Amino acid sequence: MRATMIYAARDIRVEDAPDPVIRFPTDAVVRVVASCVCGSDLWPYRGVTPTDEPRRIGHEFVGVVEETGADVRTVSPGDFVIAPFVISDNTCRHCRRGIHTSCERGAGWGSPDRDGALADGGQGERVRVPLADGTLVATPDQPDPALVPGLLSLSDVMCTGHHAAVSAGVMAGSTVAVVGDGAVGLCAVLAARRLGAERVVAMSRHADRQALATAFGATDIVPERGDEGVAAVKELLGGVGADAVLECVGTKESMDQSLRTTRPGGYVGYVGVPAGGPELPIRRMFNRNINVAGGVAPARAYLPELLPDVLDGTIDPGRVFDLELPLEQAPEAYAAMDERRAIKVLLRP
Amino acid sequence: MRATMIYAARDIRVEDAPDPVIRFPTDAVVRVVASCVCGSDLWPYRGVTPTDEPRRIGHEFVGVVEETGADVRTVSPGDFVIAPFVISDNTCRHCRRGIHTSCERGAGWGSPDRDGALADGGQGERVRVPLADGTLVATPDQPDPALVPGLLSLSDVMCTGHHAAVSAGVMAGSTVAVVGDGAVGLCAVLAARRLGAERVVAMSRHADRQALATAFGATDIVPERGDEGVAAVKELLGGVGADAVLECVGTKESMDQSLRTTRPGGYVGYVGVPAGGPELPIRRMFNRNINVAGGVAPARAYLPELLPDVLDGTIDPGRVFDLELPLEQAPEAYAAMDERRAIKVLLRP
Repeated sequence: MRATMIYAARDIRVEDAPDPVIRFPTDAVVRVVASCVCGSDLWPYRGVTPTDEPRRIGHEFVGVVEETGADVRTVSPGDFVIAPFVISDNTCRHCRRGIHTSCERGAGWGSPDRDGALADGGQGERVRVPLADGTLVATPDQPDPALVPGLLSLSDVMCTGHHAAVSAGVMAGSTVAVVGDGAVGLCAVLAARRLGAERVVAMSRHADRQALATAFGATDIVPERGDEGVAAVKELLGGVGADAVLECVGTKESMDQSLRTTRPGGYVGYVGVPAGGPELPIRRMFNRNINVAGGVAPARAYLPELLPDVLDGTIDPGRVFDLELPLEQAPEAYAAMDERRAIKVLLRP
Repeated sequence: MRATMIYAARDIRVEDAPDPVIRFPTDAVVRVVASCVCGSDLWPYRGVTPTDEPRRIGHEFVGVVEETGADVRTVSPGDFVIAPFVISDNTCRHCRRGIHTSCERGAGWGSPDRDGALADGGQGERVRVPLADGTLVATPDQPDPALVPGLLSLSDVMCTGHHAAVSAGVMAGSTVAVVGDGAVGLCAVLAARRLGAERVVAMSRHADRQALATAFGATDIVPERGDEGVAAVKELLGGVGADAVLECVGTKESMDQSLRTTRPGGYVGYVGVPAGGPELPIRRMFNRNINVAGGVAPARAYLPELLPDVLDGTIDPGRVFDLELPLEQAPEAYAAMDERRAIKVLLRP
């Protein structure tokens, strides 16, 4: 089969790879219907994180089950399934508390799982899925093809935006500001409105992303950053700042923006993978009772809640995919996202 | 009148000071019945924070109203009142959200308020109370003298311990670990049990404090710190760590202990004034979904909820006062707390 590899910074190749097979009785093999490039894939692509040796890349996909191991009970060949971006058993002590990303038997795609075998990366034609019962979520029926982008967004970005909103305690009547206008930030806008937020200020300087933020329910757009951005959001929100600020970038600057935009006693819900600014200024947080909640989103935990809303059209997070390419053009997909020519690129094997 | 001054590190003096008078129509003058030394008073006492010039010190007291300004409505001469450790109007946008410590007209004791006048420090015979309607909370009747320590604890430590527990989301069935066995930590034990926590692990190495923690409802005591402390708490709590860790110290070491003792997806509720370790390791928090909530406690917000429980004896946080001295011996009170000969010292004018 064909699969995507990263060799080094800006060196993405689609190559022949061994067809995945069932290695453990809890495995399934899934034929990929759609996968995509994640904002976090850009860190190795840009060389921000090193690539010591060539490896499979990708961690978001939907597809159809082709084969299951002897112990798999919840999915069957022919099922359309969504794969969250972390492998989990859905039964351990952390999974039962909804923190599937801390699963005691869990692993990431593209890296060896706890059995020492490589779990494929997702940006390929087929994937061996460890712990298939825990990891995969099947749709009740074969979905309309038009829903595929929305279902794919549940692998990561929609669940991640939702995690930011949930972590920040967004509820009916909340005032919200969203820092970051990538796919996650845009999904955070959608998630905040879905949870009943009254005001959602999207901080964005790009017309196309502003338009999608508005389509997703943003009530206000603030293009300014830094001091001007803080002042603009506060002015919109009664002079006090937002109840909840959703930090969807992960840089020192975006976190600083978020902390300063939050009202005293409010929450920063953060899901941006921390890069370049690892520390939080606790004394400033302390003085104003700014709370920081979030982390790597347990997408698996949120799938049962969000999937029905995608299937019935209540939300359409698939709109974050503004470019679709064949798998063979994965290098161009990375370049388009890196150069911000696309918000998020969907890949079709 | 007599009042306590700090001149420099380890130089506390009780001196003559002008009798406070009503300066603004919203002021009251309160005769102090009891005041106390705060753990945070030890920072200037130890020279950790500088004392550039002699100043009034103290910020926790209860007393009887002697005189009120023309605009004061909610308290009257003769009322027994509790003064929270921050002055607030109880009406501004932040007060209405329960964050009285961010009051738009607020101030601290012992420092000039927004009108430029000095608000006395509390460790004296009388105090001018700005914004008396907002700041002071009167008891329904004259309290039994035996209740005075408990009522005094509502000025700060009991409300601060409660803030840690509330911020960490402690509820019925929670597993809790408390880092810090000072008055705030002990009150946090009491607060966690009051909110329904099923297990409360007090981390303490001092027999007298362990005993009080147990009396306050701690189900387990862990004397170890560092790696051993983390392992001991995890072992007690099913191997996963605590749902909520209440950080009641404020050092880098205590915060590190707290972050590591929290289960994935859990909360650190922090109220220790950050000292000596101002930054939080966000990447570690991110990977395990460790949330950090809290800050300077809005004691005024919690008084209506906690006061009835003190008055009817449901809780007895006054037990944190294990030494009582006359105001004239304030220097000895500071020394006793600094040397950990006393948990918390009550001063009687």
